[in-house]
Amino acid sequence: MTFRRRVWTQLDLDAWTGGGVSPVNRLILVLVLASVTVSVLETEPTLAAWSPLFRSFNLVFAVAFSAEFAARLWAKPENPLYADPGGRMRYFLAWHSLVDLVAVASLWLDVFGMGEGWIAVLRLARLFRIFWLTRSSSVGEAVRELWSAVRERSTELFLAAVLAGLVLILAAIALYIVEAEAQPEAFGSIPRAMWWAIATLTTVGYGDVYPVTWMGKIIAGFAALTSIAIVALPAGILAAAFSDAFQKTRARRKAKGPDA
Amino acid sequence: MTFRRRVWTQLDLDAWTGGGVSPVNRLILVLVLASVTVSVLETEPTLAAWSPLFRSFNLVFAVAFSAEFAARLWAKPENPLYADPGGRMRYFLAWHSLVDLVAVASLWLDVFGMGEGWIAVLRLARLFRIFWLTRSSSVGEAVRELWSAVRERSTELFLAAVLAGLVLILAAIALYIVEAEAQPEAFGSIPRAMWWAIATLTTVGYGDVYPVTWMGKIIAGFAALTSIAIVALPAGILAAAFSDAFQKTRARRKAKGPDA
Amino acid sequence: MTFRRRVWTQLDLDAWTGGGVSPVNRLILVLVLASVTVSVLETEPTLAAWSPLFRSFNLVFAVAFSAEFAARLWAKPENPLYADPGGRMRYFLAWHSLVDLVAVASLWLDVFGMGEGWIAVLRLARLFRIFWLTRSSSVGEAVRELWSAVRERSTELFLAAVLAGLVLILAAIALYIVEAEAQPEAFGSIPRAMWWAIATLTTVGYGDVYPVTWMGKIIAGFAALTSIAIVALPAGILAAAFSDAFQKTRARRKAKGPDA
Amino acid sequence: MTFRRRVWTQLDLDAWTGGGVSPVNRLILVLVLASVTVSVLETEPTLAAWSPLFRSFNLVFAVAFSAEFAARLWAKPENPLYADPGGRMRYFLAWHSLVDLVAVASLWLDVFGMGEGWIAVLRLARLFRIFWLTRSSSVGEAVRELWSAVRERSTELFLAAVLAGLVLILAAIALYIVEAEAQPEAFGSIPRAMWWAIATLTTVGYGDVYPVTWMGKIIAGFAALTSIAIVALPAGILAAAFSDAFQKTRARRKAKGPDA
Repeated sequence: MTFRRRVWTQLDLDAWTGGGVSPVNRLILVLVLASVTVSVLETEPTLAAWSPLFRSFNLVFAVAFSAEFAARLWAKPENPLYADPGGRMRYFLAWHSLVDLVAVASLWLDVFGMGEGWIAVLRLARLFRIFWLTRSSSVGEAVRELWSAVRERSTELFLAAVLAGLVLILAAIALYIVEAEAQPEAFGSIPRAMWWAIATLTTVGYGDVYPVTWMGKIIAGFAALTSIAIVALPAGILAAAFSDAFQKTRARRKAKGPDA
Repeated sequence: MTFRRRVWTQLDLDAWTGGGVSPVNRLILVLVLASVTVSVLETEPTLAAWSPLFRSFNLVFAVAFSAEFAARLWAKPENPLYADPGGRMRYFLAWHSLVDLVAVASLWLDVFGMGEGWIAVLRLARLFRIFWLTRSSSVGEAVRELWSAVRERSTELFLAAVLAGLVLILAAIALYIVEAEAQPEAFGSIPRAMWWAIATLTTVGYGDVYPVTWMGKIIAGFAALTSIAIVALPAGILAAAFSDAFQKTRARRKAKGPDA
Repeated sequence: MTFRRRVWTQLDLDAWTGGGVSPVNRLILVLVLASVTVSVLETEPTLAAWSPLFRSFNLVFAVAFSAEFAARLWAKPENPLYADPGGRMRYFLAWHSLVDLVAVASLWLDVFGMGEGWIAVLRLARLFRIFWLTRSSSVGEAVRELWSAVRERSTELFLAAVLAGLVLILAAIALYIVEAEAQPEAFGSIPRAMWWAIATLTTVGYGDVYPVTWMGKIIAGFAALTSIAIVALPAGILAAAFSDAFQKTRARRKAKGPDA
Repeated sequence: MTFRRRVWTQLDLDAWTGGGVSPVNRLILVLVLASVTVSVLETEPTLAAWSPLFRSFNLVFAVAFSAEFAARLWAKPENPLYADPGGRMRYFLAWHSLVDLVAVASLWLDVFGMGEGWIAVLRLARLFRIFWLTRSSSVGEAVRELWSAVRERSTELFLAAVLAGLVLILAAIALYIVEAEAQPEAFGSIPRAMWWAIATLTTVGYGDVYPVTWMGKIIAGFAALTSIAIVALPAGILAAAFSDAFQKTRARRKAKGPDA
């Protein structure tokens, strides 16, 4: 096995035949998470004193991710789908490569002291690397299983969403009618009342706005009780859908052989 | 096929034989959502500058919905159920037609600058058009499936509701007894304590009222723990009911033929 | 059929053979709910002007419930279990009769203007009448079904409760350690921190107390994330238990005959 | 049966053959819970007057737990696994023995008036004794059942956690971008916005921080709606997993004999 083939086997998730994720990709995953953590912490003003430390980390990440990107590009033709002359260019222009490039460029900018403001946020684009995992065998199967269960019940879930939407807007309209006079700031329009309705029906309940009139409290009370159904309905549909999906998977495994 | 028949096929959900919803009805659905969105935004005082824009939109909606209503009325006799001489009048007087008429009238009033105050809310009546969807084949089947599952377990769901209601009133009574003296404004009567009880047991937790005495906090703590059961009980019943319903549907499909 | 037998058939849930609840008991149920509603509203000081109205209602309720109690006592010997000479006395001394008596007495006290303060609360004892329903055939079956499902999984539910309790106390200890200094009022002892922990882990989140230090916020964040598991665990156990119970019921019905 | 063997049978959960937990261990469990309760209450400053009472209780607990520890150590060689000469020492150095020793020592320190501050917290280490229960037969089976169900769906639950984490960080980034200027204290960095994101997506909703700009409220609204999925997803997975596990247990029992 050539060195380039070995590199490719380590970097390409589809190429790795030992179960799970290859050691190199595992390391990269750890680096991605560390780099995201550093980028998140860098935005905190009270940690400004640690800025040089964060920048050194970013230098390490910048070098590592640049090397990884170059290696990936160099070894890609080992993949039969990219073996043709234009394969590398195609890979280079794929959206995930461009996202990676943006993230790496943002890291280099920070190293050279130009990564201020919203540019810093671009570094977090690397987070999307986590979707890679879905292409590894065991995780990928679970994703497909869950996703197919959700898709098979998409009409039911859509109905639950429509119902939630209707309750949301009706609650907002009702509170707008009865509370607008008492609290024009919080309930003076339907979009304003929607802020209250979302906080109530999802049971978040910030408590920044709430009805103060008797009528408003009675309607809000019923809306709050409805929130139980709004949470229980999709939970019930998903539970039934997953139950179905898991049974199918088991039946399929049984049909294949007695070792499952 | 006559032009009237073609119009009817496009407008009547039962008449459309191509799967899903007909192109014209899809357009109308989009117009309904757009019109509701505009009506919602119109209530917002900070968007008063956009008022002329909203009014122009409403003119478009008013013309479109009036035309649709007229077309529907004209083409209705194509439906055998409305083919008799009094069929059009019967359709005209059906409650959904009247709701539509009210919504259209409210739009025209706004166009002519008379749609102030609560009249604006009438425009939202059009929202009920969304229930149409339930008559289209695929959505309708899902509605029937979910609804029959809920109805089959209506006694169990009713019991969960009764239990929740009992816990609600007992929690309110308990807090009224122990907190009324410390906070007469918030817990000075059972109806007042109910406002707290609903916010707590649905886990909304606005935080506008909460017990301050030790005894009150202990009781409120137990009430909050009970809220887990109050949410989990209907979720569990619905999950089991949907699981049943989905299995029945699959069994029925299997019995029909091997292509399901 | 004698008049006493007819009265007994109407009043005794076990004696009624027509499905559901007998007309007289339905009326009594409505009266119970109305009487509870009036007793709840009577505690509200802003409704003091309606006091005479509430008292008139209570007079009606007092007469009706007294008559019902007397009729029940008179007709009870029709029930073979109470046909012996001491049967009426045994029924009179049963706990549910005593609860009813207390509620009726509290109503009469109010009618004569002596039902102030905590005596008013006794009127709500009548609420327990609602548990009667569980002896009617269709509701009773659902209660037994749900209850046996809960009992069969009582060990699992107990484990979920123990786990929730452990997380609760550990979160309270952790916040007590890191936040006591910054907020002695809210986190100065473990019982105080428990108030925060319950509000957080049940996702009620009043917002009257919350950590302000970095360390406290990080721990609270993890505690909040754990709350998802604390809600999902019993919901999942109940869903699986109900699914089991419903399948058993169906299997039993199928075994009985093809008409189910 | 020798006295030492009798003591061992009472103290060692594996040795007890009568179902459930032995009477002595049940007493110890009650003492553990009482001791934890006292330790929790002792931290409350307003109960300082009860301090002598708490100390007397702690003396009782200290004596009881010391005696129990000594008895356990003395009787352990009855267990064949610890019958060798070094068995007692091995048991003495096991982590659970050390945890118990720390808890007992902390109790004695309190009795002699030296259990101030964080040393008091060590007394709560005894709480871990509750995990003993998992070795008793009926509880242990339920633990294994639930745990194997969770482990079998660990990939799916991990996916749900990754998804929740992604939504969490994306919501925090979005709010940081749109709200940082308006509320630098609450949204001035991604870690700060994370505090809001966790409170919102777990539906705790303290209400100490919430967006005030229009853009922030719209994004927060969508984040709140997403919270339904974040709660429903693991609940659905767990429900399906437990449903599977309970069915397997029943099938296994059926295969064993007709008495289950």
